[in-house]
Amino acid sequence: MELLEQRILQEGRIKPGNILKVDSFINHQMDIQLFNEMGKEFKRLFAGDQITKILTLEASGIGIAVITAQYFDHCPVIFAKKTKSKNLDGELLLSKVQSYTRGTTFDIQVARRFLTPQDRVLLIDDFLATGQAMMGLVDIVKQSGAQLAGCGIIIEKGFQEGGDRIRRMGVRVESLAIIDSIDNNHIVFRHA
Amino acid sequence: MELLEQRILQEGRIKPGNILKVDSFINHQMDIQLFNEMGKEFKRLFAGDQITKILTLEASGIGIAVITAQYFDHCPVIFAKKTKSKNLDGELLLSKVQSYTRGTTFDIQVARRFLTPQDRVLLIDDFLATGQAMMGLVDIVKQSGAQLAGCGIIIEKGFQEGGDRIRRMGVRVESLAIIDSIDNNHIVFRHA
Repeated sequence: MELLEQRILQEGRIKPGNILKVDSFINHQMDIQLFNEMGKEFKRLFAGDQITKILTLEASGIGIAVITAQYFDHCPVIFAKKTKSKNLDGELLLSKVQSYTRGTTFDIQVARRFLTPQDRVLLIDDFLATGQAMMGLVDIVKQSGAQLAGCGIIIEKGFQEGGDRIRRMGVRVESLAIIDSIDNNHIVFRHA
Repeated sequence: MELLEQRILQEGRIKPGNILKVDSFINHQMDIQLFNEMGKEFKRLFAGDQITKILTLEASGIGIAVITAQYFDHCPVIFAKKTKSKNLDGELLLSKVQSYTRGTTFDIQVARRFLTPQDRVLLIDDFLATGQAMMGLVDIVKQSGAQLAGCGIIIEKGFQEGGDRIRRMGVRVESLAIIDSIDNNHIVFRHA
């Protein structure tokens, strides 16, 4: 998505270790006008899919998931929780997620009653890198018996294995920007 | 707000200990149409305030903050983080928040560069009970030198002290529903 790539080039900051920071418009401060354009693009990509629910993971997926949901008809957003919360009760769908950065695992959790076999689910998240979190969400959808329409991602790190891994599972992945490399302050985007 | 009160009466579940659960439409599954109506109401309440930034706290404040921001002009949303994140760098504004349920304290954090003395900030959150989290956000706005327009809350627990405490600090608090009591499965709303 041209608008997003331009914005990454203009405002993204590359930190030591070739880490891209987009905290001024995506994952700490959020540019809501940009989010609306990205939400429309997810709608265009999944327009024929009769999405009934959007599922994301707290915290930084929630903003784009909620904005995107407005472009689908009567589509609630569920956010999977990373901690046992007093807001969770009843039967839970659980999946274990490995944290790449912390070397630990944690559970992500969704109340079973919000995902049924009649649902057609779009997964939304801000980043796709190792794919651990997204595989946890895919697992939760499978456990629920709902149909999985695919994943919508803002930025995919194409140099990490998550995107390939999830596509090999037969899941449709649509990333608005795919970064193939970051070297010496130069960002290379993948184009079809 | 009539629509919200009706929804709480229809779908809220009261659990032992007079705990109100609204996880089917506010803080686990989110009803985006309702969120849009609530966002319009926050805009109506703060229409004359020239809001430049909305500040909330991860995770469950993000959805309503992002939807509400659409009704203000060019208004980014910042979410304070509860954990030291690799997405945070530069100078941070920190405030300590006591967790009522866990008996612990944690830091909430915002990058200083996103809040300036030129900003006029609206705080948004889903619940106001003891007010600890909201006082942390108020403190962060004060540290930044930005002006505080007020707080917009979905549900205030009027039988806990947070709302009174923050209003006594001279901060405008607008809650879309204030619950004065929950007894024997009966919810009493406060009306002006």
